[in-house]
Amino acid sequence: MPGGHAQTLRPFMWRAERLYPDTEIVSRTHEGRTRHTYAEYAGRTAQLANALDDYGIERGDRVATFCWNHTRHFETYFGVPNTGAQLHTINPLLPDEHIQYIVDDADDEIIFVDPSLAEKIAGAAESAEEFEDVDFVAMGSDGIDALDAPAYEEFIADHSTEYDWPDLDGDQPAGLCYTSGTTGKPKGVEYTQSMLWSHTMASQTPQGIPMEDSDVVMPVVPMFHVNAWGMPFTAAAAGAKHVYPGPSPDPADLAALIEEEGVTISAGVPTVWLGLREYIDAGNDVDLSTLDTVIIGGAAAPQALIEWYDERDVEVLHAWGMTELSPIGTVSHLKDDLRDADYDTQVNKRAKQGLVAPGLEFEVIDEDGEEVPWNGEDFGELRVRGPWVTKEYFKRPEANEAEFVDGWLKTGDVVTVDEDGYMQLVDRTKDVIKSGGEWISSVELENAIMAYDGVSEAAVVGVPHERWQERPVAFVVVADGVDREEIVERIETGLREEYPKWWVPDAVEFIDEVPKTATGKFSKKDLREQYGDQSLVDGAVPEDDAPEEE
Amino acid sequence: MPGGHAQTLRPFMWRAERLYPDTEIVSRTHEGRTRHTYAEYAGRTAQLANALDDYGIERGDRVATFCWNHTRHFETYFGVPNTGAQLHTINPLLPDEHIQYIVDDADDEIIFVDPSLAEKIAGAAESAEEFEDVDFVAMGSDGIDALDAPAYEEFIADHSTEYDWPDLDGDQPAGLCYTSGTTGKPKGVEYTQSMLWSHTMASQTPQGIPMEDSDVVMPVVPMFHVNAWGMPFTAAAAGAKHVYPGPSPDPADLAALIEEEGVTISAGVPTVWLGLREYIDAGNDVDLSTLDTVIIGGAAAPQALIEWYDERDVEVLHAWGMTELSPIGTVSHLKDDLRDADYDTQVNKRAKQGLVAPGLEFEVIDEDGEEVPWNGEDFGELRVRGPWVTKEYFKRPEANEAEFVDGWLKTGDVVTVDEDGYMQLVDRTKDVIKSGGEWISSVELENAIMAYDGVSEAAVVGVPHERWQERPVAFVVVADGVDREEIVERIETGLREEYPKWWVPDAVEFIDEVPKTATGKFSKKDLREQYGDQSLVDGAVPEDDAPEEE
Repeated sequence: MPGGHAQTLRPFMWRAERLYPDTEIVSRTHEGRTRHTYAEYAGRTAQLANALDDYGIERGDRVATFCWNHTRHFETYFGVPNTGAQLHTINPLLPDEHIQYIVDDADDEIIFVDPSLAEKIAGAAESAEEFEDVDFVAMGSDGIDALDAPAYEEFIADHSTEYDWPDLDGDQPAGLCYTSGTTGKPKGVEYTQSMLWSHTMASQTPQGIPMEDSDVVMPVVPMFHVNAWGMPFTAAAAGAKHVYPGPSPDPADLAALIEEEGVTISAGVPTVWLGLREYIDAGNDVDLSTLDTVIIGGAAAPQALIEWYDERDVEVLHAWGMTELSPIGTVSHLKDDLRDADYDTQVNKRAKQGLVAPGLEFEVIDEDGEEVPWNGEDFGELRVRGPWVTKEYFKRPEANEAEFVDGWLKTGDVVTVDEDGYMQLVDRTKDVIKSGGEWISSVELENAIMAYDGVSEAAVVGVPHERWQERPVAFVVVADGVDREEIVERIETGLREEYPKWWVPDAVEFIDEVPKTATGKFSKKDLREQYGDQSLVDGAVPEDDAPEEE
Repeated sequence: MPGGHAQTLRPFMWRAERLYPDTEIVSRTHEGRTRHTYAEYAGRTAQLANALDDYGIERGDRVATFCWNHTRHFETYFGVPNTGAQLHTINPLLPDEHIQYIVDDADDEIIFVDPSLAEKIAGAAESAEEFEDVDFVAMGSDGIDALDAPAYEEFIADHSTEYDWPDLDGDQPAGLCYTSGTTGKPKGVEYTQSMLWSHTMASQTPQGIPMEDSDVVMPVVPMFHVNAWGMPFTAAAAGAKHVYPGPSPDPADLAALIEEEGVTISAGVPTVWLGLREYIDAGNDVDLSTLDTVIIGGAAAPQALIEWYDERDVEVLHAWGMTELSPIGTVSHLKDDLRDADYDTQVNKRAKQGLVAPGLEFEVIDEDGEEVPWNGEDFGELRVRGPWVTKEYFKRPEANEAEFVDGWLKTGDVVTVDEDGYMQLVDRTKDVIKSGGEWISSVELENAIMAYDGVSEAAVVGVPHERWQERPVAFVVVADGVDREEIVERIETGLREEYPKWWVPDAVEFIDEVPKTATGKFSKKDLREQYGDQSLVDGAVPEDDAPEEE
């Protein structure tokens, strides 16, 4: 059969080791920084692979990590999959019962655990039969007695720094990551060698997040979040220097790493970059001159944040992805024909989720099953397909039925696409409010309400309504001393000016805090449950403003 | 089975059409330039696909082109493979008997022929039974009576501009190209959808030849030479503007296209860029200000040429590839740690064939089957593997036996790799001279001799020798009036200063011209045949300088 060789991760590590033996992998620890060259990294990775062989790990076995971002974690990134085993990066922020479910579902043989996370996993493992056959290795120079875990350094110590990396098939499972599971059990997404290869190459295009050998790459996004958005693989393919921020870095830690290691590209959720901004705005002098690009993903990048970094000559690249997409789907590069547009237009475009990466295809489907036009207004559910988009969930045939259609992944995201092709998230399909045959974006209402002075959080959910199917209700968190009646008044009159009147919530409830998921997102499921069976009754929407019934 | 969706070319065309509907594809003709947008291109490509369906082309059928670089040829690039058929780009510079062999071997159903090449293919087709079942289409608005060929515009005219592009497997053959066959029959290399996808993505990395939507890409390298080094696909993936130089462009044509279309990236063999240099040096004022990058491949890029373009702020990127590699293998980017090196060192590195593209692996194996060290001196045969490297030849099991080993493609190139990882071609395995257990680079000797004043061409070949196995003989072309004895004297003494004495040719033969292959390379096979069975006898090499016998 014609064709090329299998797509695997091996050439990326080989290239880094051979072309850039002296380039560094720097890792922050509580005691200072560790430094390894790619040459040393390759040797240690081979030691890890030999140790895993010795332990009894075979092709297809799953090896898990329960770790922050550091060099040893990076060693598992190539050391595990390049042997033919599968690296399962567990999110330590998940509740115990999810961790128990995941470890059981994945059938992990061994878990590499950070000392600072030992208590967390010990709690999850306690009297949980899912952990009975699991062994632990402590990510450091010391073992962890409570877990009966030898030290990683001891685990790899007596093994050869050479390893005869096998030829693997492209469809060999190489990675495994679970969605955070805002509803129901977490779902596993397997990354094959070919998917990780494809994602790495797509990331390396100018339309992705390209890296060169002159780059110094610092993934702040956790390595348990879809492989830190693939950055460790991409940086290796490029021969770039790596900087890992270690456990719970605060803005001062990140500032020091950026300045002292000369970071050029970094990535994280908006909170990270808001935190750094606050730190600098508070009077801390931080040299950002080496920093070219900051990737923001995981949540929307506020325009003000983009502007603040622009003023400091740091380009914010907004990106969107999903666990199911390995994860990158779109990146908000400015198109060439927008370079002459005014700054506000440019920032508006850049704040959207962005342009589809080359190699992927998508479509946006409305309630009637039709593709919506690219006009920036009509919205529908985003469907995606491509070489680094999974075609199935791990061991979840019922989820496959529900979330894939005609070869497309139903992302569960409600989006618009504008005339220039920029995709923008409007809502989640499960959160969008279906009222009288039309859709209302809960996210737009929340953003509008959160823009009011005195409002610190707002979540809008649809609650059942006997006539309109669903109606929006706003849950609002205000600061102490804020006049609640004034807030209700502003919501009722202010939103009416910006949106169709039938978008205005039927009720405003004040709460102390919006419940959150393990990854810090609003948990609207909990809010909907608060309303329980209390269906709203007719009367809240004036007849003449009501949407047409179908 | 876990995994992502098939890797195919379809998303690249889809992305260009949807994100860049107004971006242009410009094509030079003898009558002026044609301009199409990606939106028009997509419509015409759909028309072509519908016309091929109507003609009876089915999945897996082979559709051939016999064309220069122009928009219609580019329409076949997506229009043929995206239906599931296979695009066979025939090199019109091949001798008739090779064209006959290729058309028969490929079993082409239909051939799209440029009017300017009609006579050539009619000659090859004349009374050749290989062509009996082949139909022709004339690439233009007029048919060609001699070939009974309708006009392309007529062929596609009445068809829909919409086409329901099918889901294809990644291993569906999409392209076919034959090696020029300096020895024996041409060998076919099939490009699957996945190989072309992989090559496109690898080209798009910063370590390849990356393109953006601001780029204006002009492939001068023929589209029948391994898909113009993949540039039409890469430019589409990037949403770049295309400029096709049409039939036999001369330096004035290229200069006009660069200036008037704002070309930023172009690519071709050294002759093209030497020609443009001569044109400008002759006093023609050409504005090269938009031109960022010139890719040189197909033959070594002379350092002086790199320097000339550097002076005009045009970066020469030297690249190396093969038909078997789709074609890109290495690109001579300057490594970051060489940016502080002196200019001569930099140009010396950039003039080598370069650094391996991410995703590939190679090894260099000496006569004893051992990997040679990366020291810039030891040489051996280059072996390559990777997702866009073929694992077999089309219908040639005996060639597969000879040219693949343990999953590696034996490139037939003899190379060195220096400490920085830059690969440099030293010779071809069939041309390297095996003398007394050591290898002598015929290419190095040729370059040294060609540097002498008065020498216009030189080819050095190994001829059988009863004691040393082979000994070098130089075939030299000199200008009229050059003192031949002086040239012989220079060769004998000059080479002795630079190389081991046993490298010095045993004989110098003056000839009128070095015989060339269809692609303009020296045909050493012909020269070796001139020597026939005339084995050299002992005596030419002084005993004390002779290499050790094994």
